[in-house]
Amino acid sequence: MQQGHTVFFKNRPKIIATATVAGPKESAGILGDYVDYPLQDDMFGECTFERAERKMLLWALERSIAKAHLRQNEIDVMLSGDLLNQIISASFTARETGLPFLGIYSACSTMSEGLLLGGMLVDGGYAQNVVAATGSHFSSAERQYRFPLELGNTRPPQSQWTVTGAGSAVISKTGEGPYLTCGTVGRVIDYGVSDVNNMGAAMAPAAADTILTHLKDTGREASYYDLILTGDLGALGSRIVKDLVWEKGEDIFENHVDCGEIVYKVIEDEFQGGSGAGCSAVVLNSYIYDKLRRGGSIRKVLFVATGALLSTVSSGQGETIPGVAHAVAIERCAEGQI
Amino acid sequence: MQQGHTVFFKNRPKIIATATVAGPKESAGILGDYVDYPLQDDMFGECTFERAERKMLLWALERSIAKAHLRQNEIDVMLSGDLLNQIISASFTARETGLPFLGIYSACSTMSEGLLLGGMLVDGGYAQNVVAATGSHFSSAERQYRFPLELGNTRPPQSQWTVTGAGSAVISKTGEGPYLTCGTVGRVIDYGVSDVNNMGAAMAPAAADTILTHLKDTGREASYYDLILTGDLGALGSRIVKDLVWEKGEDIFENHVDCGEIVYKVIEDEFQGGSGAGCSAVVLNSYIYDKLRRGGSIRKVLFVATGALLSTVSSGQGETIPGVAHAVAIERCAEGQI
Repeated sequence: MQQGHTVFFKNRPKIIATATVAGPKESAGILGDYVDYPLQDDMFGECTFERAERKMLLWALERSIAKAHLRQNEIDVMLSGDLLNQIISASFTARETGLPFLGIYSACSTMSEGLLLGGMLVDGGYAQNVVAATGSHFSSAERQYRFPLELGNTRPPQSQWTVTGAGSAVISKTGEGPYLTCGTVGRVIDYGVSDVNNMGAAMAPAAADTILTHLKDTGREASYYDLILTGDLGALGSRIVKDLVWEKGEDIFENHVDCGEIVYKVIEDEFQGGSGAGCSAVVLNSYIYDKLRRGGSIRKVLFVATGALLSTVSSGQGETIPGVAHAVAIERCAEGQI
Repeated sequence: MQQGHTVFFKNRPKIIATATVAGPKESAGILGDYVDYPLQDDMFGECTFERAERKMLLWALERSIAKAHLRQNEIDVMLSGDLLNQIISASFTARETGLPFLGIYSACSTMSEGLLLGGMLVDGGYAQNVVAATGSHFSSAERQYRFPLELGNTRPPQSQWTVTGAGSAVISKTGEGPYLTCGTVGRVIDYGVSDVNNMGAAMAPAAADTILTHLKDTGREASYYDLILTGDLGALGSRIVKDLVWEKGEDIFENHVDCGEIVYKVIEDEFQGGSGAGCSAVVLNSYIYDKLRRGGSIRKVLFVATGALLSTVSSGQGETIPGVAHAVAIERCAEGQI
């Protein structure tokens, strides 16, 4: 890359609009007021979890394009992926939109991979407008990764709760909005965690690696950012990432926040917090994007969505759980500057 | 994009090296002499199909880097995906390499998505060297998508045989080799095929759409290309794509070849030919790359790998099978030119 594992965007690709949709449980949290479409019914009127999941993705995608005051045929590329086998949510959504479609897979770090690739496509002059979107659904994820909900399995205390929701962002060459300044491509890191209920611990080393690489490549202090926003490490994983970064001489205790930690009310039974590709997609594209747009105390955000790279087959064959995290810096000018 | 759905590479990103590994059945075909590592044992000394699949991917990837005379740390990004749930072959291979990793998913069109994105990353100056790789394994695909091999199910005549093999290409800013001139991002097209044994028919409309879009966007005649190389349509799908393109006024009868049609000896029981992400990856990166390097009659290739975007869940829920195809033009100068 241009410096270590980091690319720099010279032409300031902008996030000109975002849109989000979230389930009833998610909308009951602090984000509720910021979500475009808080669902009353997590089936979204559909007959299967999978159909509900892709309806959310399509809704968020189309709404973000509308909010950007663009017609669908003005979007050059759709970058999307999701947690379901063969990313069927993204693929079937792409079928509905008819947009040129590049499928990506990075588990729960799909949102940051989409922004990073979208940033390069727009910055490099290959596209005028790119839409990056992802989502997840609690029930489709449980069915695929764990047990049928009907079994009523108990959940261990280190577990997280897959977010029901979708988020979409329109990245453009022109227009108004916070812009992407640089991004760091993550490496796959494996510390040997094999507990499929402890995703936070599995992903934290990858988040720490990417944050440290980003700071080294850019020469920035951790304090440069008003917010270092990880994806879905949850409560335990957030403590681990802070510690791992601290061990290497950087301090993110004051400005690190995890989307999984803030997405739910703490009285819920989600234990460590939220997870899923929809977690960081909903939090970034609603609450955080609103903060960036308004331009108060949050002007520089390092968004580091995190993904656990396992499948039921890999776990069944005794493999450990590697993680990956991609970082993208989203900034807006200080007051009075352009 | 810069023109319709097509991007143009101004800086001629080059494919400076490729490497392939293929199973015994694949190596017995016409490609055998061109594959770097023809396997005697399709388990590659491993104890599971999945481990064998990712060992092939890692081998091809590392060999391509070595053939490019690069050290592993000179590779800026690894772009890879595969057919297994949550692309575990690519992710676990990325763990072994330690390379910055962007996971992609485009079913059997992964090789052309990798070349297309890799081309933009190198052409745009974001990366010096990118490796794009994918693969598949007959037995892991059968287990995941169809039936355990032990059942000994019969195969219908419209079925294809998933290629056991992997291919990798190194795309670079500098060096020698055929170069990428432009590429077209595919849309997801669905003609309503729901027979999971008839992938060729499901994917052919997407291939036709991308070829026609590419010709329109570039203003090129179909005859501009010495070869229009689709991914894994097989015998039936190849007839369909030629017909669909013909209906729209373009003629590819003379210069269209499908990787799935040429990968096996015709006496084998693979019916319509080869399929799988490894199919086009092996054919392009061995036989075709060799032709391009030597510079005989094959100097301009439009590589259009094709993917069927289904999962066992989507099929089980009664969905049809959408397809996608991404195109990338790989060319070399005419004799005497630079």
